[in-house]
Amino acid sequence: MTGAEGQMARIAVLGGGSWGTALAIHLARSGRPCRLWFRDPDRAREVRESRINSRYLPQWSIPDDVRIEANMGRCLEGIEVGVIAVPSSALPELAVWLAALHRPRDILWACATKGIVGDAGLRCSEILLDQLGETSRLVVLAGPSLALEVLQGLPTAVVAASTDSEQAARVQALFHGESFRVYTSRDVVGVEIGVSLKNTLAIAAGLAQELALGHNGYGALLTRGLAEISRLGVAVGARRETFLGLAGLGDLVTTCSSPLSRNHQLGRRLARGESLDTALANLGSVAEGVPTTRSALALAKRAGAEMPITAQVGEILFEGKDPREALQDLMLRPPREEGEGA
Amino acid sequence: MTGAEGQMARIAVLGGGSWGTALAIHLARSGRPCRLWFRDPDRAREVRESRINSRYLPQWSIPDDVRIEANMGRCLEGIEVGVIAVPSSALPELAVWLAALHRPRDILWACATKGIVGDAGLRCSEILLDQLGETSRLVVLAGPSLALEVLQGLPTAVVAASTDSEQAARVQALFHGESFRVYTSRDVVGVEIGVSLKNTLAIAAGLAQELALGHNGYGALLTRGLAEISRLGVAVGARRETFLGLAGLGDLVTTCSSPLSRNHQLGRRLARGESLDTALANLGSVAEGVPTTRSALALAKRAGAEMPITAQVGEILFEGKDPREALQDLMLRPPREEGEGA
Repeated sequence: MTGAEGQMARIAVLGGGSWGTALAIHLARSGRPCRLWFRDPDRAREVRESRINSRYLPQWSIPDDVRIEANMGRCLEGIEVGVIAVPSSALPELAVWLAALHRPRDILWACATKGIVGDAGLRCSEILLDQLGETSRLVVLAGPSLALEVLQGLPTAVVAASTDSEQAARVQALFHGESFRVYTSRDVVGVEIGVSLKNTLAIAAGLAQELALGHNGYGALLTRGLAEISRLGVAVGARRETFLGLAGLGDLVTTCSSPLSRNHQLGRRLARGESLDTALANLGSVAEGVPTTRSALALAKRAGAEMPITAQVGEILFEGKDPREALQDLMLRPPREEGEGA
Repeated sequence: MTGAEGQMARIAVLGGGSWGTALAIHLARSGRPCRLWFRDPDRAREVRESRINSRYLPQWSIPDDVRIEANMGRCLEGIEVGVIAVPSSALPELAVWLAALHRPRDILWACATKGIVGDAGLRCSEILLDQLGETSRLVVLAGPSLALEVLQGLPTAVVAASTDSEQAARVQALFHGESFRVYTSRDVVGVEIGVSLKNTLAIAAGLAQELALGHNGYGALLTRGLAEISRLGVAVGARRETFLGLAGLGDLVTTCSSPLSRNHQLGRRLARGESLDTALANLGSVAEGVPTTRSALALAKRAGAEMPITAQVGEILFEGKDPREALQDLMLRPPREEGEGA
C-alpha cells in the first residue's frame, strides 16, 4: 500500500486501454489514489516512467496517485474495489484469474467492460458471475462516456447498475464528481444490452451518413434501432424504460454522433464499397460492433426477437450485401403499428 | 372538383407553410390530387401562377394536381380528408372555422400542426376536439420529417396516432409510400407531447453546441431531456413507450441534429450572449420552442412533473439567466436513481 492510499478504499483498475486509463486518472483527480494494471510489462514500465499512456491517450499525463502495475497479484493485493476495463474479448480469461483470488466475493467489482461475447451472447456480468460465483458486489458502470471528454472535464453522465442498490450506491459515491454524474439503476441486463448493441447501430449510422440518408432517416434509424434493441432486452429480462436512459438512448446518441467512433468509421468505409477485411485493415484497430453484431443475432434468434436493422448490418458485414440494397429492404417492409412485436 | 380528383378521396391541405406545401406535393406525387389552402389571397395567386412557394420552398415546383385555394369554403367543399398544417398559433382560430362547416365530424382530420398552446398547455388535438365536438375521425400525423428531405425523396418515417385505429390506418394508407413510412399509434397524447416539447430541447442542444459541451454531454442532455418529457407525458395520460418511438426519440434526434432548425439556431445565439429579443429579431422567423417552453412549464406545474432542463431553458429565455450558469446548476443536482421521479 502506498502512503497516499492511506485511509481510502484501495482501488485497482484492470486494463490500460483508453477507458481504463481515463477512469484511473478520474479517480486520482477526485482524490482517490488507485492502481492501474497493464497486461504487457514493457508497456507498464514505459507508462510508469513517462507517466503517459502514449498509445491511447498521448496528450494526458497520469498523476502520481495512479500506481502502474504489470503484476496482477500485487495490483490486487488488499483491494476493496476492482474496476474492470479490459476489452470484452479478454474478459473470459480475466474472469478465471479473478476467481482464483483469495475471497474474490469480498471485493466490490465495478465492470466497465462492455459487449456481449461469443455465440452464447453472454453479457460481461454473466461471464464474471459464472467464474466468481453468485455475489451482489458486482456493479456495471456504463453510459455515454468518451474517454477524452471525461479527461477534458466535459460534463458526462453514466449509470451504475446492480441488483443490489447498496453496492450501486457505493460505486456511485466512488466515481461521482462535479462534471461526472453517476445515476444508479437496478437493471443490469438492460444496461449491458443497451451499451453493447448500440455498436451495431453505430456501424449503421456510419453507413447512413455515407449514403447521405438525411436527418429524417437518421432519426428513424436510431429510433427503430433502439426499438429492436429494447425488444431483445425485454425478451432476455431487461426493463423497457432502461432503453430510454443513459445506457440506451444516451450511449446511442453519443456514439452515433461522434465521427471518431471506430464503428461509425467502419460503416462509412463499408458504404464506400470496401470489404469488411479491407475496412478493418484500414481502420487499424478493433471495431467492437463486428463481434457484437454476430453475438446479438445469435441471442436474438434464441430469444425469438425480431431485429431487422441488426440483421441487415449482419448481412452487410458477413455476407457482403450491398448497403444500398440493405437500406432499400428496410424501407420496403410492410407498414405496421409502432409498438408491434414489442 | 377537378377532373383529376375523379374517384379519389377528396383531400384538402390547410396551410401553405413549408410542411403543408411539402405534404401536398407528397400526396400529388403519390397519385393523390389535393387542394392547398393559403390564408393570404395574394400569396395564393402568386403560387397558383408560378407553381412555386417562393417563401418556404423556392426550389420545388408544385405539381398541377395540387389546386391552390385562398377561399376556405371552396377548398373544403365536399372533402373527405382535411390535413391541418397551419402554425400552432393559428390553430385556435382555424378550429372555430372548421366547427362551422356542415357536418365537420364526417370528415377525417389529419392534424400535422404541432405544439402545445397557451397557459393551459392545450395540445392541438384538444383544441380541435373542443370545437369540433367528440369525433374519432381525428388523427395526429407527426414525427421526424424535415420538409426538404421529404421532397428530396429521402427516407422518412412518421406516426399516425388516433384513439381509433381504423382512422389511423386510413391516414397511414393515404400517406404511406416507398420512402415515406407511416406507423400507426394509439397514443395521441404521447405523440403530441413528444413532438411539441422536443423544441425546448432543440434550443438546449443549440446552447450546448455553442458552449462546446461535447458528445457525452449531448447524449446525456437528450436522454435526461427525453426523460423529463416522458415524465410530463405520463403525468397527463401518455404511454411511456411512445417516447421511445418516432414522435419521441426520433423527432428529438432529427431536430437536435439538424443545424437548420430555428430552435437550434436560437439556442446558439443565446449562448453567444444575445438577448431573446435580439436573437429572435436576427433569426427573422418564429422559433416554436419559445412559446412551447412557457406552455410546457405551466403544464408541468399543474401536473406536478419535475422538468429541470425545461426549467433552465425557461430561465434563460424569460429571465435572462446566463446559459453557463444554467448548465452548472443542472450538473450540480444531487445524484440519484435513474428512473426516480418517473
